[in-house]
Amino acid sequence: MLSKNKIKYINSLKITKFRHENKQFVAEGSKLVKDLIQEHFDITELYATAKWSEENSELTENLQIYLVTDAELKRISNLTEPNGVLALANIPSMPPGHEMLPDDLLIVLDGISDPGNMGTIIRTADWFGIKDIICSEDTVDVFNPKVVQATMGSIARVKVHYDDLESFMKSVPPDIEICGTFMDGENLYETVFSPKTILVFGSEAKGISKELLPLITKKLTVPASGNRTHRPESLNVAVSHAIITAEYMRRQNQ
Amino acid sequence: MLSKNKIKYINSLKITKFRHENKQFVAEGSKLVKDLIQEHFDITELYATAKWSEENSELTENLQIYLVTDAELKRISNLTEPNGVLALANIPSMPPGHEMLPDDLLIVLDGISDPGNMGTIIRTADWFGIKDIICSEDTVDVFNPKVVQATMGSIARVKVHYDDLESFMKSVPPDIEICGTFMDGENLYETVFSPKTILVFGSEAKGISKELLPLITKKLTVPASGNRTHRPESLNVAVSHAIITAEYMRRQNQ
Repeated sequence: MLSKNKIKYINSLKITKFRHENKQFVAEGSKLVKDLIQEHFDITELYATAKWSEENSELTENLQIYLVTDAELKRISNLTEPNGVLALANIPSMPPGHEMLPDDLLIVLDGISDPGNMGTIIRTADWFGIKDIICSEDTVDVFNPKVVQATMGSIARVKVHYDDLESFMKSVPPDIEICGTFMDGENLYETVFSPKTILVFGSEAKGISKELLPLITKKLTVPASGNRTHRPESLNVAVSHAIITAEYMRRQNQ
Repeated sequence: MLSKNKIKYINSLKITKFRHENKQFVAEGSKLVKDLIQEHFDITELYATAKWSEENSELTENLQIYLVTDAELKRISNLTEPNGVLALANIPSMPPGHEMLPDDLLIVLDGISDPGNMGTIIRTADWFGIKDIICSEDTVDVFNPKVVQATMGSIARVKVHYDDLESFMKSVPPDIEICGTFMDGENLYETVFSPKTILVFGSEAKGISKELLPLITKKLTVPASGNRTHRPESLNVAVSHAIITAEYMRRQNQ
């Protein structure tokens, strides 16, 4: 049975402050938990239904499992429909972002605040084989449970580093191009990408921060189509990230 | 001052059933409300702060405005940070989806359930000049306040039709190609698109419905990159929609 203290502890990890203090996070659902196990995350405890536990006994051999009922799982879950298993895992320590200069493509996020967008960006990056993402310190915490779930398991494979972006971008050697998206940039499909490219995506509300603007070496635009008088002011940031990253990869693989 | 009944009525429109009964929906924030006015939506009432009202007096000349305080606006708002204005508008009547055969590209959504994904798909479609989207009857309601807000104003320009997709897709003439995305489809970048194309996107949890599968004439895949042992099972549906639509448009504009 789950103790009151345990329930309280697990629920406290919804809050950034307590995650940072305890260096632990929560991940839920079969796919996500299996991805974390396969990528050797340091899982300290699993809370699983008898059914999930039986079906996954091989995978969980060396892990501490507590059997819980569906009702108990609901008390510690962040999901409306808890899904068989919840893992408590240690937050891995990450080298600072500025050690992550790209061999090819690097993604930089400047103040992304919506957990769904953040999780989706990580999932898309994983699809395209990107291993590292660097975020400004005011970007939403990657171990926020909503981000963790929105990554659909990709959090197990993509490393997310937080750093001071201004000093990071100032340290980038000149052979690396730093691209940002703007309304009045160069047409994405007409640009020539540098072999080493950093793509910077700004926050949903404010775009790229003022202090980073002078460090952008190329302005890009995803060209709009149709001939409307009115059109959207911008694309959703996870969409913009997807279209530009996909186009970079299309050319890499040509 | 806002009457209790009015507050109750506006809040009831969060629920699909009451929106359908009253044929009204709520839209909030300056950008979105202005887009609806510009596109001649039938706005029955505006609830605005004195500040917003003054700044937008020209635009709202012929509209019924009720001045409200920030505190009052908060009582009828769906947002954590209400933003100057809330509009009550009549839901426009839409011709059935099956009258919407494409001249070029048509988007079909089969059971999309997440309001954020739905809103983002509409916003992206608007960016690319797409005028109509056809949805299965179990797709999330486009006038759900979370969808309305996630469109960022694009709901004013893109028409969303609900219909029985099976009978619609069966009625499609053979010169129109019906594409869906699958793990084992043809590489998006190697396919040749038909001049008239329908792109079908399935639900987040289950993909394209069984009964529609035999009606798909081309299976597509966004090729993944990198050489990982494990990778995501899929892309987020709004991301998949964005990448494929952007690629279609890139070739149209070449």
